[in-house]
Amino acid sequence: MARVVVDVMLKPEILDPQGQAVHRALPRLGFEGIADVRQGKRFELEVEGPLDDAALARIHEMAETFLANTVIEDFTVRVDS
Amino acid sequence: MARVVVDVMLKPEILDPQGQAVHRALPRLGFEGIADVRQGKRFELEVEGPLDDAALARIHEMAETFLANTVIEDFTVRVDS
Repeated sequence: MARVVVDVMLKPEILDPQGQAVHRALPRLGFEGIADVRQGKRFELEVEGPLDDAALARIHEMAETFLANTVIEDFTVRVDS
Repeated sequence: MARVVVDVMLKPEILDPQGQAVHRALPRLGFEGIADVRQGKRFELEVEGPLDDAALARIHEMAETFLANTVIEDFTVRVDS
């Protein structure tokens, strides 16, 4: 069965409090040298049937309408090899 | 500046209610043919300085001790090209 990964991240201009919280905690925990952290979501979809252009187009539509809020988030769709 | 991506997903044997909720919603929204959905976290780290083996080892340690709960989660560290 084919696996498709949809990554959803806040747009660069949108404040990311989760990422900021992680970023600020790192020096306290002894990890230096990280300039920025952004946190987002990763969806792994197990796709039935052939993973043709039509299936990928449907997954792209699904990501755009349901998995991501495209007002504030960007997403990428890729086949996991 | 180099970007490193840390993906954190629940281990396969751990119940994923977020992924299940997405999975169950898909047919209602008109998307058929998805056998399973797992939802996890994606961290994008902007790394200062050279991204050598020592830096990657530190990021791996950071992911293991802080970004992931390795009792229930698996993680991968990769350089974003």
